[in-house]
Amino acid sequence: MSKQVAFIGLGVMGYPMAGHLQTAGYQVTVYNRTAAKARQWADQFGGAVAATPAEAAAGAEVVFACVGNDDDLRSIAVGEQGAIQGMNAGSIFVDHTTASASVARELAEQFARQQCQFLDAPVSGGQQGAENGALTVMVGGDEDAFNRVQSHIDVYSRSVQRLGPAGSGQLCKMVNQICIAGLVQGLSEGLHFATQAGLDPHQVVEVISKGAAQSWQMENRYQTMLAGEFEHGFAVDWMRKDLGIVLDEARRNASKLPVTALVDQFYADVQEMGGGRWDTSSLLARLQGKTSDQ
Amino acid sequence: MSKQVAFIGLGVMGYPMAGHLQTAGYQVTVYNRTAAKARQWADQFGGAVAATPAEAAAGAEVVFACVGNDDDLRSIAVGEQGAIQGMNAGSIFVDHTTASASVARELAEQFARQQCQFLDAPVSGGQQGAENGALTVMVGGDEDAFNRVQSHIDVYSRSVQRLGPAGSGQLCKMVNQICIAGLVQGLSEGLHFATQAGLDPHQVVEVISKGAAQSWQMENRYQTMLAGEFEHGFAVDWMRKDLGIVLDEARRNASKLPVTALVDQFYADVQEMGGGRWDTSSLLARLQGKTSDQ
Repeated sequence: MSKQVAFIGLGVMGYPMAGHLQTAGYQVTVYNRTAAKARQWADQFGGAVAATPAEAAAGAEVVFACVGNDDDLRSIAVGEQGAIQGMNAGSIFVDHTTASASVARELAEQFARQQCQFLDAPVSGGQQGAENGALTVMVGGDEDAFNRVQSHIDVYSRSVQRLGPAGSGQLCKMVNQICIAGLVQGLSEGLHFATQAGLDPHQVVEVISKGAAQSWQMENRYQTMLAGEFEHGFAVDWMRKDLGIVLDEARRNASKLPVTALVDQFYADVQEMGGGRWDTSSLLARLQGKTSDQ
Repeated sequence: MSKQVAFIGLGVMGYPMAGHLQTAGYQVTVYNRTAAKARQWADQFGGAVAATPAEAAAGAEVVFACVGNDDDLRSIAVGEQGAIQGMNAGSIFVDHTTASASVARELAEQFARQQCQFLDAPVSGGQQGAENGALTVMVGGDEDAFNRVQSHIDVYSRSVQRLGPAGSGQLCKMVNQICIAGLVQGLSEGLHFATQAGLDPHQVVEVISKGAAQSWQMENRYQTMLAGEFEHGFAVDWMRKDLGIVLDEARRNASKLPVTALVDQFYADVQEMGGGRWDTSSLLARLQGKTSDQ
């Protein structure tokens, strides 16, 4: 397989991911909506810059993307100057965007009609995971295509697994967000109660994190939460986008998600408080009535 | 300090805890409402049996208790034949019941008036933790009294900490239950969605348990949850008792616990489904509409 690849979308995730590919020996051509960012990337890593997604994809065996939402994805994948216009038969599009399962299924069909493959491959692990090459990647789509791109994805991942047909990667990411929504609200209510009750919440966490209440969020976020620092991870605005996708899919597959739906509304309150860029642990600030100018 | 102690309440927790004390070399006199259970305990461990809490407490330097609720606790502690009637000045009552913070404060005052000490010391770790001597113990009350009983408690505990004045142990336990309520509901919604979406939920958990959605509950309960086995821990009936105490205290200290209050209602649904004796992870059964006779 050729070493020539493309990477579309150099945000906080895509920028270091594309960098890992170039550093690992792939010849990466990048496209980014804001061209200055693409030039900065090429200056730093030494790859090439293209003027459109189609141009970036020309000659590439694998085209990676990590953009904002379903519409951005449709545009750079199958739009007028989308990657598909430049891709050869047999090449593979790997989408790292957190998007809907339905857009993944729709694009998988469109790419198949052009003798190409589309894999949905959302990630978790955040900016830090992208920078350290330690992401978790959840893949849906054709199994042979997955086998052909696994070694590429490995250069920025700690774990990469295929969950099933097109859309399965997105559905797995949704389960992740559902679990986190209830968990972070529970933790926030616990820390809020501890504070209101006059306990030392640090000592409380030290005690209860040894048992059945333990979680990654408790261990990694409680200190910043108590300090009112909400700049340590995934932003509320992005979580609302993800929960919108989740609740839409739940309507389709008849899942009941009462707490997820409620926490989505709580995040709307956080946005109204001016906390759209705060991280998801800011549910505690909502309970405490903190505002963004405090 | 004398090695003579008493233990009141030989339920699934108290029975093995009292056994650990006797095995560690303390001379334990037990009292249990159902006398046959006390005789069974004495046959197994070789301690003494008393006919009333007062009689059990006579001559003991430390009196331990682990009973059902606030009313049971008041009765065995300060009732007509309660332990306080038999206790000497300077002795200490250690209550392992999960009870309200207010009854802990009330009893701490009553014991102090008799030159005795009362410590609230609820536990987490469940029946298995009690049997293996690996409980977590959260203590509220006088610091000197705490120092005097710590080595006793150590024989059935992995961790024992004093959180502050009377009631603080109960308040810490409440934080634990609050965190678990939201967390287990989030996990249940995630597993429910994964199933409805046609994913393999085992594979999903394998992937997402490496990241920000990880929790003790996810790692230790997801398999039994998916198998519809809800016989592996703390019962819903007991969780409802605890959440009642939590929501009552939250009203007093002006905490906002929207998801905890909602999950308490969900557990009421589980009770109505016939699942009062199921463990707390049965919130998944509620989402799936499982009934107790399936």
